[in-house]
Amino acid sequence: MDTPVPLPEIAHQSADFAQGLALECGRVLEGFTIAYRTYGALNAARSNAILLCHALTGDQYAAETQPLTGKPGWWTNMVGPGLPIDTQKFFVICSNVLGGCMGSTGPRSLRADGRVWGTEFPPITMRDMVRAQAMLVERLGIDRLFAVIGGSMGGMQVLEWAASFPGKVFAAVPVATAAYHSAQNIAFNEVSRQAIFADPDFCGGRYWAEAKIPARGLAVARMMAHITYLSEEALTRKFGRKTRAGADTQAASFFGEVFEVESYLRHQGSSFVRRFDANSYLTVTRAMDWFDLAAEHDGDLAAAFAGTKTRFCLVSFTSDWLFPTAQSRAVARALNRAAANVSFVEIESDKGHDAFLLDEPDFSRTLAGFLSGCAEHAGLPVG
Amino acid sequence: MDTPVPLPEIAHQSADFAQGLALECGRVLEGFTIAYRTYGALNAARSNAILLCHALTGDQYAAETQPLTGKPGWWTNMVGPGLPIDTQKFFVICSNVLGGCMGSTGPRSLRADGRVWGTEFPPITMRDMVRAQAMLVERLGIDRLFAVIGGSMGGMQVLEWAASFPGKVFAAVPVATAAYHSAQNIAFNEVSRQAIFADPDFCGGRYWAEAKIPARGLAVARMMAHITYLSEEALTRKFGRKTRAGADTQAASFFGEVFEVESYLRHQGSSFVRRFDANSYLTVTRAMDWFDLAAEHDGDLAAAFAGTKTRFCLVSFTSDWLFPTAQSRAVARALNRAAANVSFVEIESDKGHDAFLLDEPDFSRTLAGFLSGCAEHAGLPVG
Repeated sequence: MDTPVPLPEIAHQSADFAQGLALECGRVLEGFTIAYRTYGALNAARSNAILLCHALTGDQYAAETQPLTGKPGWWTNMVGPGLPIDTQKFFVICSNVLGGCMGSTGPRSLRADGRVWGTEFPPITMRDMVRAQAMLVERLGIDRLFAVIGGSMGGMQVLEWAASFPGKVFAAVPVATAAYHSAQNIAFNEVSRQAIFADPDFCGGRYWAEAKIPARGLAVARMMAHITYLSEEALTRKFGRKTRAGADTQAASFFGEVFEVESYLRHQGSSFVRRFDANSYLTVTRAMDWFDLAAEHDGDLAAAFAGTKTRFCLVSFTSDWLFPTAQSRAVARALNRAAANVSFVEIESDKGHDAFLLDEPDFSRTLAGFLSGCAEHAGLPVG
Repeated sequence: MDTPVPLPEIAHQSADFAQGLALECGRVLEGFTIAYRTYGALNAARSNAILLCHALTGDQYAAETQPLTGKPGWWTNMVGPGLPIDTQKFFVICSNVLGGCMGSTGPRSLRADGRVWGTEFPPITMRDMVRAQAMLVERLGIDRLFAVIGGSMGGMQVLEWAASFPGKVFAAVPVATAAYHSAQNIAFNEVSRQAIFADPDFCGGRYWAEAKIPARGLAVARMMAHITYLSEEALTRKFGRKTRAGADTQAASFFGEVFEVESYLRHQGSSFVRRFDANSYLTVTRAMDWFDLAAEHDGDLAAAFAGTKTRFCLVSFTSDWLFPTAQSRAVARALNRAAANVSFVEIESDKGHDAFLLDEPDFSRTLAGFLSGCAEHAGLPVG
């Protein structure tokens, strides 16, 4: 692994909110920043805005080069001219979540007194993230979003948007997600956190003061999480039991890489630590764990959507075992009980949870078709 | 977590093999020890012996109190008077695997020159483990085992026994296992290893010289592995989203335990480091990764069992996602191609991979029935 260094500072496009935000934990975040990117143009009626909500380790650079990694954004295959989220028709907004590390206020940010927040950063919830996004949307002069779209943790935000701001969301597309984080998913997140805590370079969360980063712990966390994003089939197809070229299997040392899947995971781990902050990882995984939309409504998920006029399109993937179809189906049932307008599509894919980020033609067609239909209903001019 | 200390030394019943063992890696282990326990009595014909093969973190204390933990052995519900593996009828042998840390020669053992093996311990394979077991069985004066039984990694050994010593195994019961370690399972093992390597107390594998143990890394490895032993259903049933009594969820700190599943996992991690050696964990996980019985026979799994007279009973569990039923089915098909005598039972269970260690009445009945039938065919006196 390369020598770990603190993440470089990058100037991100952002909006400041001096009025602050009263968080669900009871504390007040006094003044905060939301970093964001937009694609396409807002129409005169301000009616064609789509908010994209990113996943755990995603960011606002959905449809362009990510400035830290130099790699394509996370949804370049879905967002752009002529793509399902067509930037010739829609004004697309994507913001870094509150608690994140790509320019929005999070544990890596400075407090008013110039100190780094670090582990004193307050616990953040999905609702906090969504309320901060809502302030950004208002700042951009948009009363109602044409659509809110997101996968995984982004899908949790979509559901929270629909529940918290039903009048502001014409259409909602929660993808590969759930209305609560399951015990198994909490368990995986907890192992991630323990891997970070176990790294002495974590320095009790004050690594920024020591010019260190807990690279080994964060890499282990990422490696483990990465397995959960794939499927057994995908791993078998991609790697199977292939050994590394030149791996001396007869005299393999304790420390050697033998199988290709090992090299792949090590690479995933080491590249992750160059773009993500450990304290943000702790904050955002915890936000996922807290998420339980039914609990916010006395245990009745249908009540979260009572009287909603939002049009929903739920999408799950057959080989996704992190957010299995059953969890999307539970959301669909609750929406049905709430007499909502809902369609639910399970996409056949062997790519696991990551399928929502990859080239899955059925998913692209589903999303494009749903958005076209909604655009017609919303009276948007069809390009 | 308690202050980590090196594992205590315990006197184990064992047999020494001064003749050594030529390992698959090409190196020779000069003189080694196999620690073992037996239950029941060998009959006059020496025909009623059953060898139990333990799983990754199991040991020879199958049917009695484990001396380090003071807890019941790993198969006390299955092995004993009147139980499916009836010690009133059978002479049961269970040995600690080569490379293990409960008395058999492994990385924690001393070399001839008095130095600890540590990371210089040679890579071990399933076949090496099985050949060492075969030497123990011979030492005990047994020409042919009535049965070889084991789950998970133990099941890999059962398959290797049947392939390597077909004339010495009357009946074989591979449970919740596979004929090769899948890419996903290699991936999980690799994350375990990386978690251990990441712990500075690992000291490059020389922690025994520093009177340290890589407790944090080993605990993270165990926590992650433990999730894979359970099922989503089992975790939901046991823990769901229950928060800890007294957990201050509103002001949860970065480091707090919020959900009960987190406390449970932390306990699993911290208790594991008091009974298992990190270098053994590295050695034995790698042995699992190497395992590919078909590859040992030019890619044809059926060839591994050509002409076998062994009676097989394969068992899998519906909710086991670490060794899913499909992997047992592949073994059953190969045995069918080899015209072997094979029965294959998939047990309905929501307990995940761990089901083979837990009280599953259908599994107990299956095993008891199979052993009775085989005892009749083998001409064993039926008690």
